[in-house]
Amino acid sequence: MIKLAIDAMGGDFAPKEQVEGAMLAIKHIPDLELTLYGDKKAIKQYLTNDERITLVQSDGVIDMGEKNPISAIRQNRKSSMALALRSVRKKQHDGVVSSGATQALISGAHILVGRMKPIKRTAIAPLIPNVNGTNTILLDAGGNITITPKHMIHQALYAHIYAKEVLNIKEPKIGLINIGTEAGKGRELDQEVFQLLNNNKTLNFVGNVEPKQVLNPPCDILISDGFTANIVMKTIEGTAKGLGSILKQELNKGILGKIGAVLSMKNLKRFKQRLSAEDIGGAMIYGLNGVVVKAQGASKAYGYYNAIKQAALIVRQDVTLKVKKALESDVVV
Amino acid sequence: MIKLAIDAMGGDFAPKEQVEGAMLAIKHIPDLELTLYGDKKAIKQYLTNDERITLVQSDGVIDMGEKNPISAIRQNRKSSMALALRSVRKKQHDGVVSSGATQALISGAHILVGRMKPIKRTAIAPLIPNVNGTNTILLDAGGNITITPKHMIHQALYAHIYAKEVLNIKEPKIGLINIGTEAGKGRELDQEVFQLLNNNKTLNFVGNVEPKQVLNPPCDILISDGFTANIVMKTIEGTAKGLGSILKQELNKGILGKIGAVLSMKNLKRFKQRLSAEDIGGAMIYGLNGVVVKAQGASKAYGYYNAIKQAALIVRQDVTLKVKKALESDVVV
Repeated sequence: MIKLAIDAMGGDFAPKEQVEGAMLAIKHIPDLELTLYGDKKAIKQYLTNDERITLVQSDGVIDMGEKNPISAIRQNRKSSMALALRSVRKKQHDGVVSSGATQALISGAHILVGRMKPIKRTAIAPLIPNVNGTNTILLDAGGNITITPKHMIHQALYAHIYAKEVLNIKEPKIGLINIGTEAGKGRELDQEVFQLLNNNKTLNFVGNVEPKQVLNPPCDILISDGFTANIVMKTIEGTAKGLGSILKQELNKGILGKIGAVLSMKNLKRFKQRLSAEDIGGAMIYGLNGVVVKAQGASKAYGYYNAIKQAALIVRQDVTLKVKKALESDVVV
Repeated sequence: MIKLAIDAMGGDFAPKEQVEGAMLAIKHIPDLELTLYGDKKAIKQYLTNDERITLVQSDGVIDMGEKNPISAIRQNRKSSMALALRSVRKKQHDGVVSSGATQALISGAHILVGRMKPIKRTAIAPLIPNVNGTNTILLDAGGNITITPKHMIHQALYAHIYAKEVLNIKEPKIGLINIGTEAGKGRELDQEVFQLLNNNKTLNFVGNVEPKQVLNPPCDILISDGFTANIVMKTIEGTAKGLGSILKQELNKGILGKIGAVLSMKNLKRFKQRLSAEDIGGAMIYGLNGVVVKAQGASKAYGYYNAIKQAALIVRQDVTLKVKKALESDVVV
């Protein structure tokens, strides 16, 4: 059985969408057991089938806009997020799914689940859509400011194993986000990481990749430090949002245009869907002694179900153990 | 008279579009004189009116894909770009417009036009479109790797004056690109720049801005170091390009969809135009003893004309002198 802890109170539409997503997951994944952490009374409003679902009462919620994540986690030890994370350290569950505040989840996972031994920095790796209809792993999007080239190689190895085991890519290609494609471009950090990636025999390094190709990259994994990758992720988000508004403004001009927009509605909806986090699922936090998947804060039931499915697959493929073994052998640096 | 030097051989469609753009500029700007540097024979093929236009023969072109910009400029001293830039140092012209290789132009401008005294780092500042139909100044997009907080304040002051004089914004607002909006976010560099901007009495600082708002920012000027701003610019470009392809794939699905797409054609074209560099014009290189405007490599005549118009306006408003004076007073750091 795969056992996952669900932070039922985290998320813009919690606990409704989380509970419905959990029931969807139970329906589709026969060897799954879930524990929902949250306000039992609120959860029961939406829980129409408690097959393989256990409820545990929590106390307090981490605010979605939490500005001081570490103290939020420390001061809310009975919150649904903290309880769910601690249950993984206690080996009660294989992993956690949460759509709660990202920074609190990253800090909480670090403190309460614990780091995998040789990894010094945890990282968060969202999947971004690309023009071919598949996804690219982007890391570290979590905003880690202090990072060394060696930490980045550890994260690259994690992504390599994740891409093979979970995304089913035989030989995942890794690209380094940079301001130019030639070797020697970028800051000292980028130049050192370039060398390490280039010399590494396990990782399939394609070289520097300019973000001009961010939705059509020549690789499956895009890597940079936590500041830069976070900026890239947010720029994609901001550009998509901005272009969406501009498109809407322009498409509704003129009578023919308005008719065209109506006829195109279904296709425009699918366009929006392809960019939506709902179908892509969650971002995994790398480097922990367990599986922690961050679902989007605005997750609806289907998106949340996808994040649970993803977490279950990561557990099934034993990604954590495989990364540990790879790090213990000398394939890395 | 405003006197500009034109690098007629730089650009994907040079010299045709450059020559036609120059003639357009002459037609619309009565107090403008242009010198076109390039292959006289090739230029004359397209030059149907040489009113207020002088030709100077050049020898050699800087390749658009130039990988080693500094040596390219040093080894091609008779190229159209080098001759145009040198003419500004010689006070023959007030400024240069070029759609040649960006890095070569930045290096060449630094070497051949020369830096304005107290400014230690030149910067390139493209205009990016926003959802309101106006533009945001982004800097430094040029990829300067070594930069200090003080350099960034000099650049911010330049942008402040540029926004007032050229974009006609009374009190330009400045935002610092960062991974979070709260004070104290980001790297040491970002934190120091935040403090300096916050304490500065001339500059109107709105605080940190996350690139989630990059096309709808609460400010007129977005500033970061050369690495980060270049990554932001290229991520906008990559996302817009990628979304364009995805939109095209989706819009043409189904019969109704295809009809809708045809009816929407005019509006989609305008959508594309709003994002196009043609209408936005060129990127200015800040920090020189003269005006250098980089037009897009793929410029057509109209876009090139816009870049010339922009350069003429910068000269007319005496931006260089105004920045110099502001730097000499103690308004900056």
